[in-house]
Amino acid sequence: MTFSKQLLKTPSGFPDLGPAEAIAQRWMLDLIRRHYELAGYVPIETPLVERPEVLFAKAEGEINAQVYGLRRMNVTPDATDDTKDLALRFDQTVPLARFVAANYGTLAFPFRRYVIGPVFRGERPKDGRYRQFIQADIDVIGDGTLNILHDAEMVSVICGIFTELAIGSFTVRIGNRKVLQGLLLASGVTTPEAVMQASGMIDRLDKIGREAVLVQLADLGIADNAARELLDVLTEARSTDESLALLKEKHFNELFDEGVQELIDVVAAVRSLGVPEERFLVDISIARGLEYYTGTVYETRFDQYPDLGSIASGGRYDNLTSVFADRALPGVGISIGVTTIAPVLVTTALGLGQSAVYLEYAKRLRAAGIATEVYLAERKLGKQMQFADRRGFTIAIIALEDEIAQSTVTIRNLKTGDQETVPTEALVETVQRLLG
Amino acid sequence: MTFSKQLLKTPSGFPDLGPAEAIAQRWMLDLIRRHYELAGYVPIETPLVERPEVLFAKAEGEINAQVYGLRRMNVTPDATDDTKDLALRFDQTVPLARFVAANYGTLAFPFRRYVIGPVFRGERPKDGRYRQFIQADIDVIGDGTLNILHDAEMVSVICGIFTELAIGSFTVRIGNRKVLQGLLLASGVTTPEAVMQASGMIDRLDKIGREAVLVQLADLGIADNAARELLDVLTEARSTDESLALLKEKHFNELFDEGVQELIDVVAAVRSLGVPEERFLVDISIARGLEYYTGTVYETRFDQYPDLGSIASGGRYDNLTSVFADRALPGVGISIGVTTIAPVLVTTALGLGQSAVYLEYAKRLRAAGIATEVYLAERKLGKQMQFADRRGFTIAIIALEDEIAQSTVTIRNLKTGDQETVPTEALVETVQRLLG
Repeated sequence: MTFSKQLLKTPSGFPDLGPAEAIAQRWMLDLIRRHYELAGYVPIETPLVERPEVLFAKAEGEINAQVYGLRRMNVTPDATDDTKDLALRFDQTVPLARFVAANYGTLAFPFRRYVIGPVFRGERPKDGRYRQFIQADIDVIGDGTLNILHDAEMVSVICGIFTELAIGSFTVRIGNRKVLQGLLLASGVTTPEAVMQASGMIDRLDKIGREAVLVQLADLGIADNAARELLDVLTEARSTDESLALLKEKHFNELFDEGVQELIDVVAAVRSLGVPEERFLVDISIARGLEYYTGTVYETRFDQYPDLGSIASGGRYDNLTSVFADRALPGVGISIGVTTIAPVLVTTALGLGQSAVYLEYAKRLRAAGIATEVYLAERKLGKQMQFADRRGFTIAIIALEDEIAQSTVTIRNLKTGDQETVPTEALVETVQRLLG
Repeated sequence: MTFSKQLLKTPSGFPDLGPAEAIAQRWMLDLIRRHYELAGYVPIETPLVERPEVLFAKAEGEINAQVYGLRRMNVTPDATDDTKDLALRFDQTVPLARFVAANYGTLAFPFRRYVIGPVFRGERPKDGRYRQFIQADIDVIGDGTLNILHDAEMVSVICGIFTELAIGSFTVRIGNRKVLQGLLLASGVTTPEAVMQASGMIDRLDKIGREAVLVQLADLGIADNAARELLDVLTEARSTDESLALLKEKHFNELFDEGVQELIDVVAAVRSLGVPEERFLVDISIARGLEYYTGTVYETRFDQYPDLGSIASGGRYDNLTSVFADRALPGVGISIGVTTIAPVLVTTALGLGQSAVYLEYAKRLRAAGIATEVYLAERKLGKQMQFADRRGFTIAIIALEDEIAQSTVTIRNLKTGDQETVPTEALVETVQRLLG
């Protein structure tokens, strides 16, 4: 029996990664992990399988129908099915909340942890969505209180990672749920349910457009002029300082004022941390899972790849653990959508033909015990050399089209700037001589 | 509502790893990966979810009842359940066989790949088994044929990894399925089913003892004296050379002779690769999933932790892909049971109290941009310094009990051998001075 081509395909939403994609993804995961560790985060590993009660305690909206449970296959009729307590996690934050509640007595707070691993969501395959994807998260959890400066640190870590990833320019948008909710209350949206619904509508502004949102807001009972004013405040393009100046002038209610002050504090701290001005923007239209976040919220987009959606998102959640523990354990965190980004990384990497050559060279060098990294992003040679130098490498191997065609490689000593071009066969011995 | 302590516990067989355990496990995974890459293996990533048809094409024996399928939870009655095609992988080799068959046209053979990730088996929780565990595998797949020297390379890679892991002494046992099967045929076990059953019995020699195996072999119809002779050949403690000399003298049948020649070739190549004599042993009683392997088989045990069972196992499979592809794609591979080993790593690491101090120092150094590794295995200080030196580190931080009690650290310059003891607060600035 031979399998049909159809059966050899992985199920929809669960793709294979071949060597080039897997190497690119591992390179990215290592880079993210290095930044997380340098920022003082330690790893924990929670299982991929959690109790459904834990997941559904905090699953929200559409996610409720996307959780996968486990079941026994091929069991004999008399066997007991013990899988009713088993379901696959849909994010990394709910398991963290459970872990912190379960281990409260043995953890030192503020507790900074990172976790990098797969999560599962039964999205409709026709949308071309991934149903298994990697989330790389950091979160910091306080005992009772958590300084707002942690909210700023998240922006700094994100910025460090995407700058070194060097896929392209990006912007971290910073919003605040209290500001948005305060604004909605002032527009006549008073019940918590209506606030959530309106936030959801505003969150889709980008997708469905201003007029469609106005129709939906009218359905919620918001007067047309109030709705138009609301969208004006939310969506007019402004610099961070212009946004903050505008927000400071207004005093809709206490919640709004509190949120504005948080935004001002976060932005000041983001600047103190040295995040370049062009890498972040205050955008109070960001709503992101309002049922979950209570203050600062983040979204990050590549300027050249807006269709990817947000590639690093998160926020402050002051009440997430309240269902698991009888004490306040406020937290703030971000999640990088590694699986979303990886294809862009491969697309921007060199053509597969050349990568195969580079991998072969790397293999030969590694076989000689020489630690070797293949640079995957397609950038100007000067930038690549700058990267190699900044990483502290001693030697760079350069093999452009001409060199590959002539079976030669150029070996540059990054310390002295000298370089020589040698036949490919002499690669390992030349590098060994330069290192020795 | 607050969750009960019981609900905060992870499901049986799916434990959490706290920071100390997660750091130890990551350290081990990095080490394994480095060895795999140095040996020329490239990563691929197959999804955790495969089609049941693929898994059951090669699931064997008890594993058939251990495969987890997925199911929809909380679906509305009219929703379609599209999870019938979704099940969790129980190993890394069957997905590899599917991947190689699906991508035959684009791969270069021999195809060497590594993969490190979780697999799932619904073992009975009362046995205290893990139901999610990490397997770190390498395999090499040939197109049509695959040189027997690859079988020896596996032993060399395993030996390199466990030597550097430095948990304790270990032995890689090398067997051959053809030798065992030839022996059984000669003892009167003739049908393939009986060969498999007898192999399974012999595989449990360690667990159930010689007398119980004799009873079982008698049930298979093997004469008592033949069974005793068989067990004598299989189990008498011998050196590798004594075993090979004994096997060479005998000529039960063609299959047996072929297997003996393979064993001789593998052992010769293992020696050529520089694997120390005390790290491997020919043991023809190893059976390991006979339905799956066709030649060389491996098992590895820590000499001090025999209860862990085999921590690195594998073998040659000449027909694994035959169900997926219409050509012969013989392979050989090994799988390291990371989750089985990790607790030993933590047990042998320093006490948690001290680790917490070391992690705090590492955090401070990392926060200053200084790459820092915490040495986790409990070994003599001299060995630790040797390790640091071999890894090419410039500086070692030493904090023994006395130093921790006095809030000091000793900072040693590994290049010059000079060292100084300073107050803990001066840690970062002293290291910066020495590095600068």
